Amino acid sequence: MNHTFEKLTPWLDKAYALNTALVLMEWDDATEAPEEASEMNAKAVEILSTEYYKTIINDEVKSILRELSTMSDLTSKESSILKELKKQYEDMEPIPQDEYQNYQGLIARASSIWAKAKNNNDFEAFAPTLKEIIECQKKFINYRLKASGKNVKPYDLLLNDFEEGFTTKELDVFFENLKSEIVPLLKMVVEKKDKISKDYNHQIYPIDKQKVFNHNLAKHVGFDFKRGVIKESAHPFTTNFHNRDVRFTTHYYEDNLESAIFSTIHESGHALYEMHIADEITGTPVGTGTSMGMHEGQSRLFENNFGRSKEFWTPLFDTLKETYPENLDDMTLDDFILGMNKSTPSLIRTEADELTYCLHIMVRYEVEKMIFDGSVSVDELPEIWNKKYEEYLGVTPENNAQGVLQDIHWATGAFGYFPSYALGTAIAAQIQAHLRTVMPLDQYLIEGNFEPINNYLKDHIHCFGKTKTTNEILKDMMNEAFNPQYYIDYLKNKYTTLYKNL
Amino acid sequence: MNHTFEKLTPWLDKAYALNTALVLMEWDDATEAPEEASEMNAKAVEILSTEYYKTIINDEVKSILRELSTMSDLTSKESSILKELKKQYEDMEPIPQDEYQNYQGLIARASSIWAKAKNNNDFEAFAPTLKEIIECQKKFINYRLKASGKNVKPYDLLLNDFEEGFTTKELDVFFENLKSEIVPLLKMVVEKKDKISKDYNHQIYPIDKQKVFNHNLAKHVGFDFKRGVIKESAHPFTTNFHNRDVRFTTHYYEDNLESAIFSTIHESGHALYEMHIADEITGTPVGTGTSMGMHEGQSRLFENNFGRSKEFWTPLFDTLKETYPENLDDMTLDDFILGMNKSTPSLIRTEADELTYCLHIMVRYEVEKMIFDGSVSVDELPEIWNKKYEEYLGVTPENNAQGVLQDIHWATGAFGYFPSYALGTAIAAQIQAHLRTVMPLDQYLIEGNFEPINNYLKDHIHCFGKTKTTNEILKDMMNEAFNPQYYIDYLKNKYTTLYKNL
Repeated sequence: MNHTFEKLTPWLDKAYALNTALVLMEWDDATEAPEEASEMNAKAVEILSTEYYKTIINDEVKSILRELSTMSDLTSKESSILKELKKQYEDMEPIPQDEYQNYQGLIARASSIWAKAKNNNDFEAFAPTLKEIIECQKKFINYRLKASGKNVKPYDLLLNDFEEGFTTKELDVFFENLKSEIVPLLKMVVEKKDKISKDYNHQIYPIDKQKVFNHNLAKHVGFDFKRGVIKESAHPFTTNFHNRDVRFTTHYYEDNLESAIFSTIHESGHALYEMHIADEITGTPVGTGTSMGMHEGQSRLFENNFGRSKEFWTPLFDTLKETYPENLDDMTLDDFILGMNKSTPSLIRTEADELTYCLHIMVRYEVEKMIFDGSVSVDELPEIWNKKYEEYLGVTPENNAQGVLQDIHWATGAFGYFPSYALGTAIAAQIQAHLRTVMPLDQYLIEGNFEPINNYLKDHIHCFGKTKTTNEILKDMMNEAFNPQYYIDYLKNKYTTLYKNL
Repeated sequence: MNHTFEKLTPWLDKAYALNTALVLMEWDDATEAPEEASEMNAKAVEILSTEYYKTIINDEVKSILRELSTMSDLTSKESSILKELKKQYEDMEPIPQDEYQNYQGLIARASSIWAKAKNNNDFEAFAPTLKEIIECQKKFINYRLKASGKNVKPYDLLLNDFEEGFTTKELDVFFENLKSEIVPLLKMVVEKKDKISKDYNHQIYPIDKQKVFNHNLAKHVGFDFKRGVIKESAHPFTTNFHNRDVRFTTHYYEDNLESAIFSTIHESGHALYEMHIADEITGTPVGTGTSMGMHEGQSRLFENNFGRSKEFWTPLFDTLKETYPENLDDMTLDDFILGMNKSTPSLIRTEADELTYCLHIMVRYEVEKMIFDGSVSVDELPEIWNKKYEEYLGVTPENNAQGVLQDIHWATGAFGYFPSYALGTAIAAQIQAHLRTVMPLDQYLIEGNFEPINNYLKDHIHCFGKTKTTNEILKDMMNEAFNPQYYIDYLKNKYTTLYKNL
């Protein structure tokens, strides 16, 4: 190891340990901590976040990083860590420590305030917290812009935090393109929607049975229970400590079969990414998925491209029917596939079909742009949200729980994250197209044989963590950078085939 | 607040936050973390433990403590915190930081090694870890004795960590006394044991039903689910973050009804103590139960003095029968009470009846004395354990899982803890005797009315945390220090009454 780099080790170790504690506290807060614990637990999060800040941002680390920047004999792992740390440094240093600490405390409390507000369908109960979060974010953006001398829109800075190199300029084009291609397709599909029955999905599916089925489903796609845990929370999410401890949540609804199924497959895709990070980099600053877009690329690949296909369900359908004989006795595999791919403009993003999904993201993208260019206030959010749903999807939320309160993201401060879902969805189609050129993908799905699929993803995408960018990974794997055309082709092909006999 | 004392605040805050993280990681490790996570998670524990050490042991804190020691205008809360911190200082300062860090890492890994060894009935798999733990402990004791100039036996130092002021000298007398009183009583009781049937206990009790029943049982005795969580682990335990987040585990066996019932009541007793700590001191170094003996005093009070009485089960028995109609349809309340109080010398401490329980503790007490005076090696432990079980209880473990591997304590480094169980059992009898003089205790149990009982315990014992010692609490409450005679009287009276008609 480079001698100067070695001086970073105690700082990296401490950052790793504090991050482990903070991730666990967040996981615990979402899945288990008792109701009244939140205020005192948030205090601990606040203090440890400050310690984390001080572990990264201090004169000693700064001078080590400066010294390392002049060196040419770093290994590629060392260079990657250096690059990542410099990025974190640039992001965090401009923010005064006390403001950072307050913000962390605010975020630690916000999730349970949001959850309660959503439960009680009470936007006003969440609004003051949301205002505070947005004000902090705006202040932080100003600090960062001032320090870097960059002349970019505030929201572009946030977008870049989740997906390097993507700005509103590219995203505007990307979304416009999608819209112009999806809308005619959606029109065709919606016209035929009454020919597809989805009644089966809203019968009673006992939660105990759902639990067993979905745990087996996660196992089927390769989730390793020796390295992972599945629990429940209001909003499904995946979190990771290192490659041997990756956890996700799902959410069971007694009157919805597919909700937990698709969130389980989706989160399994995220989890596999993190379980496959190489041992050499796990627990380091580059030992995690390279970007949110690539992460969603994995989860959407599993959820949609695999999970909504006839091939995927061929080896699972009998077990599904045996699990719920009272509900699915008369169901055929083809009807089930049609049902799960029925496209209906609806209110809830996480339950949206593939065709309308990106329209949900567009609503959020546009609302976030407005928040950060100052053209909408927090109090106006429910109204603007509902208007945009009406405009893009033709549906209007009956209440804020189904509307602006549905996602946890803003309560965690994750503005600029949503577009990654759309990028990831497009990346997934690109990866699937590539997989078909290097292996009998559909045959493997029919056999329920995920080992060769996972090994390929591991060796060509997952293992690298942040040592490669999204585009580097794609180029090395398939000689082509990100290209949304795959996604448009995929959607056209899929829906034309599916609906041709209706 | 005293101006000098104020300077402690950032250190106390940081110690609180780090402790919260460490307690959560321990809880997570025992209840949820995936199998392969332990090595990497232990690394984080190791690093954070060192941070905790450095937060308490440093020149700045040392000089603040020295300054505070000369001051006479501290509030009683401040004095208590000062006293507690000085104690922690004296215990930790003599231990070199790197050795402390190694030890914390060792302990963080040991529980899962122990659990696996117990599962596989493989003492050899645990022995090397146990040796390391004991060697560390012995070294630490030497450091501490050297630093303090105290001339006491090594094991006495450990005993004192859990129960201030108790040494082998007093405990030898205490246990001798108990033995001479219990053995004749046990003889009478064992002679009649065939007249009591306990067959009901070893039928099949579905774990789902047990879960519901035991959660309701915890609620019945006052456990507040808004401030607490119940989960499962190999060995039941209680842990606490602060008075609004107190958690315990139980363990369900499909073929044992009483095991989970009594561990649930036992751990509820611990949990109530921690939930009732006063708001003013929660989250501070004195915001937890005053000693292990007093803590066991609460858990044993609930488990035995309350939980094994006819009064306690009067309002619960119908629900119990309705929960398990196939098992308990013909059972009468009197038979159930006799059954749960059947005394049989057995192998497992946590499932022992009240009469034989202290004999289990004596085995551990004597083995621990031998470990620390060097008269037994780790490799000889299974043999000496089995011999003592034969001598005191007349039973011999068939394997080490039922023998020397049964308790988690040594894997957590808790040597000197076991005697607290016996002290606590005696304290419980003393508290019960006092409660009967100030309230219609048995009537409240019959009514299932725990509110006045819990309020009394809260106001006279729990709320004080470590601001009072065990003996101060007892004296202030009932004008009498610890007196084991109450316990002997309780046992004699209980078993004479129970068995008089057999």
